[in-house]
Amino acid sequence: MLGSPYNRTGNQPLTLGILGGGQLAKMLAQSAYQLGLQVAIIEHGENSPAGMMTKLEFSGGWSSQEDLEEFIKVSDIITLENEFINPSILEKIAERRLCFPSAETIAFIQDKFTQKQTFSNAGIPITEFQAIDSVQSALEFGSLHGFPFVLKTRTLGYDGYGNATIRNANDAQSAWNKFTQTEEPRELMAEKFVNFTKELAVMVARNRRGEVAVYPCVETIQENHICRVVIAPAQIDEALQHVAKEIALACVETINGVGVFGVEMFLTNEGKILVNEIAPRPHNSGHYTIEACHTSQYENAVRAVCNLPLGSPEMVAPAAVMVNLLGERSGSGIPDSVVDTLKHPTASLHLYGKNGSRKGRKMGHITALGQTADEALQSAIGAAKAIVW
Amino acid sequence: MLGSPYNRTGNQPLTLGILGGGQLAKMLAQSAYQLGLQVAIIEHGENSPAGMMTKLEFSGGWSSQEDLEEFIKVSDIITLENEFINPSILEKIAERRLCFPSAETIAFIQDKFTQKQTFSNAGIPITEFQAIDSVQSALEFGSLHGFPFVLKTRTLGYDGYGNATIRNANDAQSAWNKFTQTEEPRELMAEKFVNFTKELAVMVARNRRGEVAVYPCVETIQENHICRVVIAPAQIDEALQHVAKEIALACVETINGVGVFGVEMFLTNEGKILVNEIAPRPHNSGHYTIEACHTSQYENAVRAVCNLPLGSPEMVAPAAVMVNLLGERSGSGIPDSVVDTLKHPTASLHLYGKNGSRKGRKMGHITALGQTADEALQSAIGAAKAIVW
Repeated sequence: MLGSPYNRTGNQPLTLGILGGGQLAKMLAQSAYQLGLQVAIIEHGENSPAGMMTKLEFSGGWSSQEDLEEFIKVSDIITLENEFINPSILEKIAERRLCFPSAETIAFIQDKFTQKQTFSNAGIPITEFQAIDSVQSALEFGSLHGFPFVLKTRTLGYDGYGNATIRNANDAQSAWNKFTQTEEPRELMAEKFVNFTKELAVMVARNRRGEVAVYPCVETIQENHICRVVIAPAQIDEALQHVAKEIALACVETINGVGVFGVEMFLTNEGKILVNEIAPRPHNSGHYTIEACHTSQYENAVRAVCNLPLGSPEMVAPAAVMVNLLGERSGSGIPDSVVDTLKHPTASLHLYGKNGSRKGRKMGHITALGQTADEALQSAIGAAKAIVW
Repeated sequence: MLGSPYNRTGNQPLTLGILGGGQLAKMLAQSAYQLGLQVAIIEHGENSPAGMMTKLEFSGGWSSQEDLEEFIKVSDIITLENEFINPSILEKIAERRLCFPSAETIAFIQDKFTQKQTFSNAGIPITEFQAIDSVQSALEFGSLHGFPFVLKTRTLGYDGYGNATIRNANDAQSAWNKFTQTEEPRELMAEKFVNFTKELAVMVARNRRGEVAVYPCVETIQENHICRVVIAPAQIDEALQHVAKEIALACVETINGVGVFGVEMFLTNEGKILVNEIAPRPHNSGHYTIEACHTSQYENAVRAVCNLPLGSPEMVAPAAVMVNLLGERSGSGIPDSVVDTLKHPTASLHLYGKNGSRKGRKMGHITALGQTADEALQSAIGAAKAIVW
């Protein structure tokens, strides 16, 4: 199907295999089904948000040789929703199936230090950074580039996990202990603190032929290191939006990326744009694209890995706002009531169907379109506040 | 979940059971998943478009006592995509589960003669009609209301099947034979031919509290009795659009409908609006709502049967056009290529994943938004023509 060499027989739909079963995989699966594909999910655990949407669910995860083998067998093309997968597994898969993003791309970006080196070498604007191998070198970095600065684990960090703000020697020592005196000590790096006016993000889709779709530049608002609100387009000069889009595109081309990528950036107090980091998968900052753009990041991710022409990333309304629905308590993954939320008639509710909640966990989101950002913001935030956990 | 008494435990998502597994069920399932629900499908046959999207697939159909029993057990709320289900089965289900639309509603409309009587009694404008029990009475109808007229089976007709245009005594005799001299003879009715300028349709969602969402009035263009193109909104005076919407709402309230309903109407040469018929389910004329409205007919159908507040049916763009993708040959359900179709960047492609094609079979659809109907038409038709079967 879809002109792919991986249509095993003339009558079997192409099966997209997704490494991971969370909400990103769920929304990828939605788009795959819309295009008439079948979906296979491999995840550690049963009945994940995406796992419940298919019979081809492999709940032993990719660390189970058996499940990985079965998953590969039934899939025609494979992609991921989770960048924490060992590139060696991707290489193994790639021996037998088209798999995007590739192990090579993942290797460029999975280690945040390597990621920054790669971008730096390509002339992409980023903050000062350095590998850190001791408390001493951490403090030297601070002397050179100023306190506070950010100490990060080079791998496995997300939503603030694996980051520490270093104001002084005490902070340096305790962060060093926390990250290295553990069962799985991590390699560390330091980044110069960025004094920013806004945090920005741009989604970029790129298919196997190198065709690209660059989404609008959006503003993201974090709280406790977790994304809370996304405003599309970002309320900054169009010239700056354009610069952000160009930089994001450069990032993806530098790593020869195929699929969809979320590029996070800072707009500094001096009006410059610096790249923060890149995720090689659909991204929280791109959920708004489902209602707000001709083609969502999810659909373009599917098209990209299947090497199909990409759809327009342009917006269909002047403004859109997405608000995350974060867990407020432990317990059931199901809200007590969404009735008041749904009384906001132009708010689009997404609930991920996770089997349990905890404070701060991403449980769903709401997107609203508007003639202005304010209008969209009112609708989305009003709806989000009204949910009863 | 969702404030429903049918949340069996605090931690199980609500399961929406759908009678039928075709493309309408598929798109209903998409919306159910977006709202965090689970989905169960009962259909005659495996791997239907919706059946492949869930583990809770019952492929013996509702004529299998066993499968129906299991389907009822796992479902919390039940709806349908197929109006050809015996109301007695719906009654049986309703003894144990909330089931919408109800058997009562279905009984009003499943027999087209009863349907027209119900509307006529409520003062809803329809064409002249009569039950027909002989070739003679058919010819008398023609003498009274004019030739040609339409002879229809009262039950089980769709997309032109079960209709015959009667121009003379020969037509009357051969249609009578065709519909009655068979293994399963059908009861018949006659309708006065309507000389129409346009065919219109309006989708109406209505929840259990009687809250409604009335979608735009659209124009539908048929070819060989099958819907080919839908233009939203219909290019008629706003006053007429308003009348059509009011009439459609009256139809749904008359039958105490809960769920979503497709009301098809004629705009006569005299500028009057007459109701043609109503379908108690999502409808081909409403596929455009997925991209073009704040809340799709599918999502509002799910909300309606779950008794949740309905979302806005208003459009997010000035115009939208949907084009059906009909099979061009027998054989694989998978197109040879969609590459040229997808080169139309603002066209949204939907492929239903049916396991086989035949000429005229509904295999998918394309929707395009536009600033004007012409713009949307160009994009949608261009993309549709480019598909290679």
